Amino acid sequence: MYVYLNNAATTKTDGRVIFKMSKYYSELYENPMTSNYSPLAKNVEDEMEIARENVSKLINAKKEEIYFTSGGTESDNWAIKGVALSNWDKKGEIISIPIEHMAIIKTLETVKKWGFEIKFLPVDKYGMVNPDDLKKLITKKTLLVSIMHANNEIGTIEPIEEIGKICKENGVLFHTDAVQSACHIDIDVNKMNIDLLSISAHKFYGPKGVGALFIRNGVKIEPFMDGGHQENELRSGTHNSPGIIGLGEAVKIAMNEMEEERKSLIFMRKMIEDRINKIEGININGHPEKRLPNNLSITIDRVNAETMLTYLAINGIIVSAGAACSAKEKSPSHVLKAIGLSDELAHNTLRISLGKFNLVKEIEYFNEVFEYGVKRFREMAPK
Amino acid sequence: MYVYLNNAATTKTDGRVIFKMSKYYSELYENPMTSNYSPLAKNVEDEMEIARENVSKLINAKKEEIYFTSGGTESDNWAIKGVALSNWDKKGEIISIPIEHMAIIKTLETVKKWGFEIKFLPVDKYGMVNPDDLKKLITKKTLLVSIMHANNEIGTIEPIEEIGKICKENGVLFHTDAVQSACHIDIDVNKMNIDLLSISAHKFYGPKGVGALFIRNGVKIEPFMDGGHQENELRSGTHNSPGIIGLGEAVKIAMNEMEEERKSLIFMRKMIEDRINKIEGININGHPEKRLPNNLSITIDRVNAETMLTYLAINGIIVSAGAACSAKEKSPSHVLKAIGLSDELAHNTLRISLGKFNLVKEIEYFNEVFEYGVKRFREMAPK
Repeated sequence: MYVYLNNAATTKTDGRVIFKMSKYYSELYENPMTSNYSPLAKNVEDEMEIARENVSKLINAKKEEIYFTSGGTESDNWAIKGVALSNWDKKGEIISIPIEHMAIIKTLETVKKWGFEIKFLPVDKYGMVNPDDLKKLITKKTLLVSIMHANNEIGTIEPIEEIGKICKENGVLFHTDAVQSACHIDIDVNKMNIDLLSISAHKFYGPKGVGALFIRNGVKIEPFMDGGHQENELRSGTHNSPGIIGLGEAVKIAMNEMEEERKSLIFMRKMIEDRINKIEGININGHPEKRLPNNLSITIDRVNAETMLTYLAINGIIVSAGAACSAKEKSPSHVLKAIGLSDELAHNTLRISLGKFNLVKEIEYFNEVFEYGVKRFREMAPK
Repeated sequence: MYVYLNNAATTKTDGRVIFKMSKYYSELYENPMTSNYSPLAKNVEDEMEIARENVSKLINAKKEEIYFTSGGTESDNWAIKGVALSNWDKKGEIISIPIEHMAIIKTLETVKKWGFEIKFLPVDKYGMVNPDDLKKLITKKTLLVSIMHANNEIGTIEPIEEIGKICKENGVLFHTDAVQSACHIDIDVNKMNIDLLSISAHKFYGPKGVGALFIRNGVKIEPFMDGGHQENELRSGTHNSPGIIGLGEAVKIAMNEMEEERKSLIFMRKMIEDRINKIEGININGHPEKRLPNNLSITIDRVNAETMLTYLAINGIIVSAGAACSAKEKSPSHVLKAIGLSDELAHNTLRISLGKFNLVKEIEYFNEVFEYGVKRFREMAPK
């Protein structure tokens, strides 16, 4: 049995998405930006606009507020650098939290070098930010608040509706990295007062190499990728038409099936939680309720995560340790440290992330293998 | 008959490339950066390394000098902005030419805003730069020279070996946008003294949404996309593994078939040229010899390109007018203006770009339809 429980890192592309994309490689390959009078290029353009419409519906935005990118990292880079570039002369402050994805953390380091001030809000032991802290930290120099919708390691869902309200009241732009949440939990950019929002197709059964940035009409943002005027002159580069159309299809599927998927994920996660709760010395990280339905981050006393990862992989089970997108880093996760875990406990932490292709029998298998492993490793560990 | 003659804009993905990519969507979808111990992720990583090796062989680089991006526009943005960022404190000059692709021209405008000085070398009526002019323009403040290998509109191949030599002698970095030339004509980054080189897969029968930047070992360049440490910490973002593997396959095919393809393209282009030479008042743009094998840019007296484009499209023939990647722009092409064409003549210019899937009978059909069109439009045009 091969059990893939690393869906927060990437998901298997849905067969319906692959089917939809395939003809845009083989037959409908034309570039609508340059084949103006081609009927085939027109079809490509129409399908990309359907994709744009699907994304806009998903988050309750307008179609013209959706810009396609090469993925979540680009969307995050663009949101922050684009706002910074459009405030080049006066500079200013950007507020974020220390448990953001590296695509945000590292981008903030770059704009700091450009002369912008970066401030971080604290998070509690669940990784949750307190909106009151934001109220205190915002000043007249604040340009942008960037706080993720849900954390990629511990699954905690931030109070972004309250954050959006505070940003709006203070006339400050609000960006959220929704790479982990989009197509998994509900998003409404109007209700939540979001100005900029990043998504990535491969996190919801779409293709890799494509994402989107929502930019509310009227938001002043400079292009990140300069060139041939695509995407309303804001994001240049030949459209990745198969990818964009695949993204749109994945969003359409998610809108129809998200609700059902969520129930199934919570059911399977509870199967694991119930089993884990019977083993002593295992702690579940992240918020007990306000957490992504597919996420389970656990810290196992006296069991090293790397050892457990190897053992599970040998038995055909794929989970992850440490930061999702920097597992090759050997330093402990910045997220786990920010929520107060010691280096040792951070090194004992595994992330199990479920997906819609997982089956109950796979979870039963995982539970057996996992419990046996914990028992054996603890027996072998120095007391 | 449907005749696609817009291969400089984008090409049909080779069936062998689609076949190669497909399993990396459906089965081998894992993310090697986070599934460290997964045998399937290992396979993905291995295949991406084969792709990297193929690209390195194509241009005579080392494998570790190849970095995957989302396409030519990103590679161009990265090359220039990355060098600018790594010279942030001292600033300096960048030298280029006015007929570069918009991905370069617009990027130079951005770095100018950052405080860097931009200087342009002139080009002659063929769009050719004179290396002696570069010698005169380089100063001690020059950081980077960015001159394209071959022009996307008129096909002229620049003397990049001489340019590279001058850059090396002066200790200046040399970037070339090889988006139009890679996999079509020979490139040797060592012989040509190139430090940075941009390519894009969809220009040589690979997938859209993926490209590469060659960065010579030792070149100081900052990341353009910040995040999760991929690509030797220089280009973050989850790898577009199907795209990267597709790019590698397209390069492999090109290395085997480029020579034969070139002969076939030149043969077919000559069929068009011979016919055109029999019609009066048609001028071929670009250098007579030093020109891409698939490019034919023509200016037709008294025939508006948009009218001709529509007429050809109605008859199933797709060519392009004006700038390749900004055909929706109505202002005349900056390339055609730079080589001395009047606005009117620029508006009378068509680009015919052949590809390996074109057939002799398609060219015969094009010739018939084209000649008839020119005759009819001239009869109808006001004298």
